[in-house]
Amino acid sequence: MEYESGIPYEDLSIGQKACFSKTISETDIYLFAGISGDFNAMHLNEAYSRNGPFKTRIAHGFIPVSLCAPVVGMKLPGSGTIVIDHYVRYLRPTFIGDTITATAEVVEKISEKRRVKLRLTLVNQNGDMVSDGWVQVVPPKKGLSQENL
Amino acid sequence: MEYESGIPYEDLSIGQKACFSKTISETDIYLFAGISGDFNAMHLNEAYSRNGPFKTRIAHGFIPVSLCAPVVGMKLPGSGTIVIDHYVRYLRPTFIGDTITATAEVVEKISEKRRVKLRLTLVNQNGDMVSDGWVQVVPPKKGLSQENL
Amino acid sequence: MEYESGIPYEDLSIGQKACFSKTISETDIYLFAGISGDFNAMHLNEAYSRNGPFKTRIAHGFIPVSLCAPVVGMKLPGSGTIVIDHYVRYLRPTFIGDTITATAEVVEKISEKRRVKLRLTLVNQNGDMVSDGWVQVVPPKKGLSQENL
Amino acid sequence: MEYESGIPYEDLSIGQKACFSKTISETDIYLFAGISGDFNAMHLNEAYSRNGPFKTRIAHGFIPVSLCAPVVGMKLPGSGTIVIDHYVRYLRPTFIGDTITATAEVVEKISEKRRVKLRLTLVNQNGDMVSDGWVQVVPPKKGLSQENL
Repeated sequence: MEYESGIPYEDLSIGQKACFSKTISETDIYLFAGISGDFNAMHLNEAYSRNGPFKTRIAHGFIPVSLCAPVVGMKLPGSGTIVIDHYVRYLRPTFIGDTITATAEVVEKISEKRRVKLRLTLVNQNGDMVSDGWVQVVPPKKGLSQENL
Repeated sequence: MEYESGIPYEDLSIGQKACFSKTISETDIYLFAGISGDFNAMHLNEAYSRNGPFKTRIAHGFIPVSLCAPVVGMKLPGSGTIVIDHYVRYLRPTFIGDTITATAEVVEKISEKRRVKLRLTLVNQNGDMVSDGWVQVVPPKKGLSQENL
Repeated sequence: MEYESGIPYEDLSIGQKACFSKTISETDIYLFAGISGDFNAMHLNEAYSRNGPFKTRIAHGFIPVSLCAPVVGMKLPGSGTIVIDHYVRYLRPTFIGDTITATAEVVEKISEKRRVKLRLTLVNQNGDMVSDGWVQVVPPKKGLSQENL
Repeated sequence: MEYESGIPYEDLSIGQKACFSKTISETDIYLFAGISGDFNAMHLNEAYSRNGPFKTRIAHGFIPVSLCAPVVGMKLPGSGTIVIDHYVRYLRPTFIGDTITATAEVVEKISEKRRVKLRLTLVNQNGDMVSDGWVQVVPPKKGLSQENL
């Protein structure tokens, strides 16, 4: 069986982009609470949140950020990518029913380490930026799927 | 109804710590794939992963990192905290069945902005560090739960 | 411990019917995306779907169809049934909040193979047919639960 | 915002293939039981299944079949595809831990209706065919994403 491999360092160029979009549901919030253990009232308690700054529950900050994972891990660079580190700045809350688009863009190629830096932006359906950040990755080696797997 | 509020800026001190532990299950991985859209073969394809560097599937990197959310959002500083930004360095993979302990420690008080910087470390059941990073937060205001909610 | 067995070939008659109903929720769609890997925008992206032919997200076609499984596997013929093959024609979309009734009806007894053909229809709360199709099954043997299990 | 569209009728050719692989987990079975209502003992009752023909629980037949959805809906033809009908022949059971690869292959172009027939095969990690079938679809119109969405 042969698997698709992602884009190797050589074939990535500055400005290259990929994205993934999804509407964030209440289901996502409840399942993520179960995975993470974060049962903060602002995510799961509507009665409490009605009196808070946003007047309703908001998604855990990690939920919209998690949409970067399929972009980086399945598209740019894609399968075989190793993540070194990442940075996220939270700018706006995400509400139930918001549609988030995660975009990754190659912003730097670090040739001595064969690493790539991607800017990661999250935008909601109104075009407002929800978070901004970056990730440093080691893209898959050329021809990895054929030789090694 | 009165809700508990987290620890305000004034009451936080350098070196203060809190933690949260959980065993990461296959269920966590499958649900997180559904939340994030990340169906990367290294997380969901055992046949593929058997030939990879770890010889089995590994958890999405965000899953152990997500255990920081209950520490910061529910304990230190706790309810009412606003997260500004965070940084994660990925050091080791997490396997199905690993027990991860997330620890937050106050490392800096930034008085002009009334912000706090917490170091966030994740350690597995063998004492190996899985990831290291930090988060900058605005702790809840003193007496928030009594006055405003 | 004794388990109930389904209806054997001998006891099934043409025209015999059974049904199962359920309201399809957004949760069903989000969980099914996680099972199948199908994150198609028409199922999970409300902003995208608003401009499409249905003006909102629709359920994955397999979700209403899956309601045939409890009818065939638990009622008619029920426990111990082996499914040979099935055919589905998709006629209408299913929206979040639609209540679907799956009905199975015995339409043919194939005596040389001791198989039964059931028509499978799905109807929504307005009486509109959502899908039409059939399944061929081998019903459980007579007295299976008493003798073998 | 611009969305990717799938491959239009004109650009599809006989023999074109796409695939998607995933290891089927117990989680998939339990969540699918909750979606479909199919709580048949052979899927959810290990004590019962130990005495049955396979000596353990097997996945609902629809679970491996559902892996065809991301192939057809996200890759070949991809986003914007309308499914007309499909046929599935069940050949072998899927066990917890099996890795299933769903492959779609264009086998017929029906020019008068601008439809395409794809063969859908499911193979497990041992190379055994789990199911065989086909789907008839209307691929997305050329340039759909730019003009209409």
